[in-house]
Amino acid sequence: MNPLTTLVEARFDPHCHNKYATLMATGNGALGVRATHEEPYTTQTRGMFLAGLYHGAGEGETNELVNLPDLVGMDIELNGDIFSLLSGEILAYRRELHFESGALTREVLWRSPQGQRFAINSARFVSAARLGFLGLRLAITPLDGTATIRVATGIDATQTNSGRQHLAERELRVFENSYLQGRYRTLDNVSDVILGCACRVSPQAQVSFSAKNRRLLQHTQQTVGKGEPFTLEKCAWVCASLDGPDDNAVAPALTALRACVSAGFDALLAESLQARRNWWLHARVEVQGTCSQDQQALDFALYHLHAMTPRHDERSSIAAKGLTGEGYKGHVFWDTEVFLLPFQLHTAPQIARQLLRYRWLNLAGAKRKAARGGWQGALFPWESARSGDEETPAFAAINIRTGERQKVASAEAEHHLVADIAWAVAAYGQATGDEVFMAREGRALLEETARFWLSRAQAVNGRLELLNVIGPDEYTEHINNNAYTSYLAHDNVRLACELRRHLCVPDDDFTAQCEDFLARLYLPAPRADGVIPQDDTFFSKPDIDLTRYREHAGNQSVLLDYSRAEVNDMQILKQADVVMLLYMLPWRFDTGTLAANLDYYEPRTIHDSSLSKAIHGIVAARCGRCDDAYRFWRAGCEIDLGNAPHSSDDGIHAAATGAIWLGAVQGFAGISVKQGLLCVTPSLPPHWQRLAFPFCWQGSTLRFVITQDTVTVVCDRPVTLLINDVVVVAKGETAFVLSDPAVRKEAQ
Amino acid sequence: MNPLTTLVEARFDPHCHNKYATLMATGNGALGVRATHEEPYTTQTRGMFLAGLYHGAGEGETNELVNLPDLVGMDIELNGDIFSLLSGEILAYRRELHFESGALTREVLWRSPQGQRFAINSARFVSAARLGFLGLRLAITPLDGTATIRVATGIDATQTNSGRQHLAERELRVFENSYLQGRYRTLDNVSDVILGCACRVSPQAQVSFSAKNRRLLQHTQQTVGKGEPFTLEKCAWVCASLDGPDDNAVAPALTALRACVSAGFDALLAESLQARRNWWLHARVEVQGTCSQDQQALDFALYHLHAMTPRHDERSSIAAKGLTGEGYKGHVFWDTEVFLLPFQLHTAPQIARQLLRYRWLNLAGAKRKAARGGWQGALFPWESARSGDEETPAFAAINIRTGERQKVASAEAEHHLVADIAWAVAAYGQATGDEVFMAREGRALLEETARFWLSRAQAVNGRLELLNVIGPDEYTEHINNNAYTSYLAHDNVRLACELRRHLCVPDDDFTAQCEDFLARLYLPAPRADGVIPQDDTFFSKPDIDLTRYREHAGNQSVLLDYSRAEVNDMQILKQADVVMLLYMLPWRFDTGTLAANLDYYEPRTIHDSSLSKAIHGIVAARCGRCDDAYRFWRAGCEIDLGNAPHSSDDGIHAAATGAIWLGAVQGFAGISVKQGLLCVTPSLPPHWQRLAFPFCWQGSTLRFVITQDTVTVVCDRPVTLLINDVVVVAKGETAFVLSDPAVRKEAQ
Repeated sequence: MNPLTTLVEARFDPHCHNKYATLMATGNGALGVRATHEEPYTTQTRGMFLAGLYHGAGEGETNELVNLPDLVGMDIELNGDIFSLLSGEILAYRRELHFESGALTREVLWRSPQGQRFAINSARFVSAARLGFLGLRLAITPLDGTATIRVATGIDATQTNSGRQHLAERELRVFENSYLQGRYRTLDNVSDVILGCACRVSPQAQVSFSAKNRRLLQHTQQTVGKGEPFTLEKCAWVCASLDGPDDNAVAPALTALRACVSAGFDALLAESLQARRNWWLHARVEVQGTCSQDQQALDFALYHLHAMTPRHDERSSIAAKGLTGEGYKGHVFWDTEVFLLPFQLHTAPQIARQLLRYRWLNLAGAKRKAARGGWQGALFPWESARSGDEETPAFAAINIRTGERQKVASAEAEHHLVADIAWAVAAYGQATGDEVFMAREGRALLEETARFWLSRAQAVNGRLELLNVIGPDEYTEHINNNAYTSYLAHDNVRLACELRRHLCVPDDDFTAQCEDFLARLYLPAPRADGVIPQDDTFFSKPDIDLTRYREHAGNQSVLLDYSRAEVNDMQILKQADVVMLLYMLPWRFDTGTLAANLDYYEPRTIHDSSLSKAIHGIVAARCGRCDDAYRFWRAGCEIDLGNAPHSSDDGIHAAATGAIWLGAVQGFAGISVKQGLLCVTPSLPPHWQRLAFPFCWQGSTLRFVITQDTVTVVCDRPVTLLINDVVVVAKGETAFVLSDPAVRKEAQ
Repeated sequence: MNPLTTLVEARFDPHCHNKYATLMATGNGALGVRATHEEPYTTQTRGMFLAGLYHGAGEGETNELVNLPDLVGMDIELNGDIFSLLSGEILAYRRELHFESGALTREVLWRSPQGQRFAINSARFVSAARLGFLGLRLAITPLDGTATIRVATGIDATQTNSGRQHLAERELRVFENSYLQGRYRTLDNVSDVILGCACRVSPQAQVSFSAKNRRLLQHTQQTVGKGEPFTLEKCAWVCASLDGPDDNAVAPALTALRACVSAGFDALLAESLQARRNWWLHARVEVQGTCSQDQQALDFALYHLHAMTPRHDERSSIAAKGLTGEGYKGHVFWDTEVFLLPFQLHTAPQIARQLLRYRWLNLAGAKRKAARGGWQGALFPWESARSGDEETPAFAAINIRTGERQKVASAEAEHHLVADIAWAVAAYGQATGDEVFMAREGRALLEETARFWLSRAQAVNGRLELLNVIGPDEYTEHINNNAYTSYLAHDNVRLACELRRHLCVPDDDFTAQCEDFLARLYLPAPRADGVIPQDDTFFSKPDIDLTRYREHAGNQSVLLDYSRAEVNDMQILKQADVVMLLYMLPWRFDTGTLAANLDYYEPRTIHDSSLSKAIHGIVAARCGRCDDAYRFWRAGCEIDLGNAPHSSDDGIHAAATGAIWLGAVQGFAGISVKQGLLCVTPSLPPHWQRLAFPFCWQGSTLRFVITQDTVTVVCDRPVTLLINDVVVVAKGETAFVLSDPAVRKEAQ
């Protein structure tokens, strides 16, 4: 394996505080910590989140991922000067997130306002081996003479979600002159959180403790000589009881912290590194090419895919911003099943299973939501948290000019999510052959989602139609027969029937209804030119020149010039819709259709959603447009890694990181599944010499190594594949030469 | 009148952010705004408070004065550099609070990190004429070339009380592209707060608005040439419905704001200045002497006495920190009646009346509290807010080392407050002759407080004793027959009887009980040496050397070496107790007794309370110890104005500002009341040439001008006085020469 890359922040820039606080966030799927600096800045938003810990801050407030009391902050005084990189002079600065170890390091050389130089280095990691552990190390060396160093740090519960407080302080303790512990309870009395920490200081210093105004702090003061390092290692332990307060959790939390403190920062870092190395072995996508940013983007994406996924808890799923920020209130969208689950499915299928069980466990809420709408089966919430109930606020934020509140349409009509979940269930069944899951959770999910569509469809002139829906393109609301939704719904019902047949479930009324649905559901057919109508009226709407909006993709700048209603009445797409459909059901459409729809829709798409460009890239790759594919893929990588200083302030674009993997594996490696067979149709960017990655498939872990000329498959048992549409069997390590007529790609 | 002084902050020092944010706070008794800088700093605590707006942030949380959404903050960018005085270079800096106008100004010359110089000046005031108005002006002039200036400001509801959020955001609006309005409701649905603001920008600029994460902001951007000033005037209006939500308050709030905006910043400042000038005319204490800090301390004190007193609302009283900080949660203590009410009584008696009506309106709560303790009459809460119920938390903050919570003793046993209120009622009656008030509110207050003492006293060996009380000295808890409490209780009952006789209330059981109480209550008598025992056991306790604790008075450092129980068992006073008694009832004790008790108790007093030194000063003045008196008075002035960087972080020491006035008027001018007569026994510090002040007395406004040799009294009708214990009558303007045998002070 090539060495893992890193992400470097080479310059201290307050404009980018929150961008890097997001990009360099550390986490392990249970606990996420924003990469804010130890010393405070008004321009940075601190954040620490536990997967699954949601709370609504009061009447009318949405449940949101609770921003926990802060453990990272340190008030540092050097010879009486408050340490801040805004003051004094920065002589050297480098922050680096090490994707391999998950450690975030900062090295600073600072001249204080009084003129003394200090080397101030820090390191931080969230353990991949012990899910509640956060370790921080601060080392300060005075370079010009003796210095008195003061550090105050502990547990700061003044932290809020932008002013919304979720936690009541229940108990603050200092045990054995070392261990700080704060116990907090959500204001609804449902969840407890316990935070503990202890600081080891060298050389040994006098310490005192204070508890005031929701801050429990250890105050450390020490005088050290020139060149003598002062170090402070802070071990912290965070845990929660999410389903009811637990007054007995205090002692075990202290025991866990004590164990960490005895192990020590270095040993815990080594333990965590080992766990992460094992993880990378089974996940990493390696690329060799002339652009080093490509490997970095893949490492970045996978690093965050690891950090955001709650593999420890099937009652939690992946939030739209992972555990890196307050954006989207930590809610779970279709992003999880469509953009994030495939990576898990093909690197750690048990996690994909768990993410689907999250939906299965929440079937009751989905049935309630369907029933409220007058439908049957399961209508999953557009946004969900822990309970599985709809978390989308009924009304959008008030229009500050008119005072009106618009109903949020997505929760009302963006129903394709139901079929997306079914799609993911079927993909899971196909990729794993997990009969046990499919017989219980899979069947329930496929049947209940199918049942929803049966009831959702309306008979219109002898055919069934899906009226008043919203497809992925949210600039076109409340339309009839949205192609994406209809095709996916059709597939959903088909998959349910197939599974029932596979499970030998006897035919019944449901079967008959499904067959009727499959026969009569109206699926918008391609026009003569191959273009599929996005919905019944789309083609009848006027076009406008979108150039300036496309130049500022992601900013929704079109809404500054036009109202939502006006945008709705033009051929303007926020994001891929028909193109998304082509991506989702590759077996259904030939490359001609792909090309025709790309050509028609892409110029009409602003890409204001971060979900858009990457999907275009994959579809472009599938029709052999390598340059386009790469351009789109890079644009997808830039969503977080690009230069825009504020685009990631609220958290990582989780789906976009998933799409970086999708683009490499499904786009450039060209992996897809057709008729149950794994297909490989590579389309490497010209400057990529080699693309290698592990891939779990039906109980085996394959390894693909793809070059411009060859596809090498390593497997522990024979696997039948389609390479460039030719059936081959791989055994052990098999290299297929693409120029070999046996696997030559047919001319498009 | 000599020109009013100012308070200057000559240097930008982050260590002192909160000290000056308190000292330079602006307010009008209804609205108080901490003097935080426009640009944000992590080291400053913003604060804006409305008198009477209390709320408890959740189960187990105390009601506290709500820290409102912020109006002061401005994010300023100059050519892309975020403006912060921590970065770049400060070429000039001066902040000044103008006591006369109540305006706070700041003048800064700043070199940005990019090297461009800017003059950045701002001004701010809370109107003394329109109680909801806060005006801010920012002027930025680029000195080295064209500059693009961005300012974002509005209403920032991320503000909390140290992390506790009280307000739900109900509605955010922008009217007519100018007026921002936020409507907030306390989480208990009891109170509404409406904040509005509008910014006038010159030269006219493009503006936009945003509402996100509880921040409603106007974003202004303008490019101005070298030497061309950019100004932004922000008019803000704050109002509340404190006794129930009011959905109809939005329109009137907007109308009020609109009126302010049409009047404009300058006109409103002039209007407010006029109102303040009128106020100073009837309140100012002028001193001529060689130490200019003395006049400044008096101006400072009176400025804050004005800013803290809710003269608009008899349902509110004065918080221990006024409206300048979150300290003591904005609660009302005995400080109000004993330390703050005398100033009002003798400069604006109608306000003293109102402060007493606050207690009268809250009699029901006081009766409930007495009944809960098994007593009769009124036991006023040790800490009160708006409801009049006890707001002292039942338990103190948890002991972070033991996990134990101690009961808060003050609310249980510090009952002298009852008699303090009665003392203030009687003083009011005496000073104003307000028969109407005394017949209703006065009688009710004196009778119900007396009734409490009747039931509180216990017969012990034939006499009545007050057992298990806490006097003002809180280092000696749960003692029997505390001299302060017993003498004051005795006086309380006496005053009730006197008033009833005055009002010709027929004698009844109550009268008989009072007479019995007055006859049988044990009042600790002075020993042979004149020293009054603080309580039954005080003299039996050991002494220790208090030198080091007295050197750090105010820090409670003795509690670092001894437990509370240990302190309780030694002759250690936190604050004046017997000395306080001598101060309260001057007619009861001769100067010999004063001297003996000062000499005994003062060395045993650490002065850890801000209420202590000033009272010692007055008692010292009364026994002719001019130097001691001045030393104590200056120490009282230093409580807020001294150099300690953090002693005022949580807010002004309201009682200490009252004591600055008390020291001048009751100490140095030697004004007291004995047998209903106004006494003047001056004892000016040697370096004071002249002390002049207005003084309301029985419907007249007298004016005293006191020099080392003379007392001049100006009055609009004849007033009988005791000058140096000699009865005189003043008419028009009368100068009494102190060397004249008719008014010569007797030798002590």
